[in-house]
Amino acid sequence: MKISGTHYRTIWLTDTASVRVIDQSRLPFEFRTVDLHSLDDAARAIRNMIVRGAPLIGATAAYGLALAMRSNSSDAHIDHAVQTLQATRPTAHNLAWALTRMRRALVEVAPPERADAALREASRICDDDVDQCRAIGSHGLGLIREAAASLRRPLNILTHCNAGWLACVDFGTALAPVYMAFDAGIPIHVWVDETRPRNQGASLTAFELGAHGVPHTVIADNLGGHLMQRRQVDLVLVGSDRTTSTGDVCNKIGTYLKALAARDNAVPFYVALPVSTIDWSLDEGTDIPIEERSPMELTHVTGKTAAGALETVRIVPDASPALNLAFDVTPARLVTRLITERGVCPASRSGLMTLYPGRGAIS
Amino acid sequence: MKISGTHYRTIWLTDTASVRVIDQSRLPFEFRTVDLHSLDDAARAIRNMIVRGAPLIGATAAYGLALAMRSNSSDAHIDHAVQTLQATRPTAHNLAWALTRMRRALVEVAPPERADAALREASRICDDDVDQCRAIGSHGLGLIREAAASLRRPLNILTHCNAGWLACVDFGTALAPVYMAFDAGIPIHVWVDETRPRNQGASLTAFELGAHGVPHTVIADNLGGHLMQRRQVDLVLVGSDRTTSTGDVCNKIGTYLKALAARDNAVPFYVALPVSTIDWSLDEGTDIPIEERSPMELTHVTGKTAAGALETVRIVPDASPALNLAFDVTPARLVTRLITERGVCPASRSGLMTLYPGRGAIS
Repeated sequence: MKISGTHYRTIWLTDTASVRVIDQSRLPFEFRTVDLHSLDDAARAIRNMIVRGAPLIGATAAYGLALAMRSNSSDAHIDHAVQTLQATRPTAHNLAWALTRMRRALVEVAPPERADAALREASRICDDDVDQCRAIGSHGLGLIREAAASLRRPLNILTHCNAGWLACVDFGTALAPVYMAFDAGIPIHVWVDETRPRNQGASLTAFELGAHGVPHTVIADNLGGHLMQRRQVDLVLVGSDRTTSTGDVCNKIGTYLKALAARDNAVPFYVALPVSTIDWSLDEGTDIPIEERSPMELTHVTGKTAAGALETVRIVPDASPALNLAFDVTPARLVTRLITERGVCPASRSGLMTLYPGRGAIS
Repeated sequence: MKISGTHYRTIWLTDTASVRVIDQSRLPFEFRTVDLHSLDDAARAIRNMIVRGAPLIGATAAYGLALAMRSNSSDAHIDHAVQTLQATRPTAHNLAWALTRMRRALVEVAPPERADAALREASRICDDDVDQCRAIGSHGLGLIREAAASLRRPLNILTHCNAGWLACVDFGTALAPVYMAFDAGIPIHVWVDETRPRNQGASLTAFELGAHGVPHTVIADNLGGHLMQRRQVDLVLVGSDRTTSTGDVCNKIGTYLKALAARDNAVPFYVALPVSTIDWSLDEGTDIPIEERSPMELTHVTGKTAAGALETVRIVPDASPALNLAFDVTPARLVTRLITERGVCPASRSGLMTLYPGRGAIS
């Protein structure tokens, strides 16, 4: 997607073969890129959320393994690198998926070939992600087109967190259909959940949509239910960090509350996801490990002062503790449909089987 | 309640007969009081949320009318003052209730007596509020005692926004039972919703509870549903800014989402309110006017820098619009019980009739 007219992916190889990413921790106020030169650089970029979003975490981990192979391409170092990268973020399934795919590709070639093979495989993971997001976009576009057809006003879509191109390599998952609908001339407006405590909605989704020209309004996470009661939301569209084989969806904390409100107000609740987020080994969303992050993400906020500087302020009394869990699980019963790169299906084992008859084999 | 060992109310008359309030817009980082000398001072204090919380808004409006009577005690000026104060916050019902009560008291006395009469009536409104909150506290204490009886761990209470003593004259509505339970030695722990966009939970409720020594943890508004799924919330306890005659509850934006999660997880959802929030003229919560406030409350955040200064930062891209509605309506079907100064009742017309058989007469 474009920023100020220039097309970007979120991760790419430079001419000198270092891995370059957009530093998402400074957005929307500063656009900077960061070069990753080593396994540790990659692990740190994921852990500190320089990069974030399930698909991009997977892509960065893949490149991280490739960087690790440059210094040491032994079997033992593959194991070490996989463990290091896996430990950065426990919830996103793409991380395990990408590392498994990378390891499979690497153990088949001799150590001296591994550095090059790893770069090629990481690059294929990125290209595949772009293709998948494009496919999710066109399947989701069908749903948007249908919902918008009978309206004489813009279709109101609510989204939570950032499942846009910044969360992926390009296009996005939940936002891919939004971009395609906008580009197709369908009148749409997006309610952007702020997404406390990291504010990925207020910072990244608002930034993305604004850069592409998509009409949008930032709202407190608390507002979505009320807007649904007032019939000001036509559909909800979110991403997934991990999806069980039964269609339970683990996504940014607060997603479950929006799903409850959608059901209470008969608003369709769609989840867009590439196959790489599906954890075929899990039947129960409650079994997904939920990442606990630093309380400082909640107690402190970073933004731009009137003078234009970035400043961090504390917003909770010094003596008050805080708890910061990053994800919750929306049970399949609250999900209207899943949108994957293969099409649209009910959020259930049988629904997923219609799209992935060779269950698990593809992952 | 106490701050650093000194007992405070949120509003009081000074020795020189000016009205003094705690400036809640600087909490939790600065404790300051502000003196109100005129009608305009009082209106501004309410509008700019120097004072906030339904009962305290009513009390401040009452004193505002008393201040207005000092400069001009004519019938016309009563009308002017009532209109000015009524326009400050459209949702809180106590405002209309307090102004109606004040007007009734004033029209009965001759203009030269009105300034004194108004001060006496405003002071009675404050004392009544304290008595009511104390009564709400003891009725709610019964529910807490019952819920805690079978536990071998602290009772986990979730609250949204600030319905503590800072929202009232003393004690609070939703937090009155919490303070009484704590003082009675019942082991409790409070999950404090941050309450975006004004952060009344993270700033005021956390401050209050901390000052009183009540164990608590600040959480993002997004987290409550997940905690309920994990059985880490035993009951929800919130206040109300306006309650319909049928038991619908208008409270801080986001309350409805917590009520949905409570129902989905069979967690009791209690609303504590004094009779002054009950709007007997309204049957439908959807008829309550919802206040729209400045988008800046959402796009900007004020907190303390590492250097100890208060600073305001922008957290949304400059070009992105934001919408800030302050309240939502939780339908009675999601409310387990109402707790009023007269006792505990179902959230329904018949439930309220058991406590207020002379419906409307008392308001």
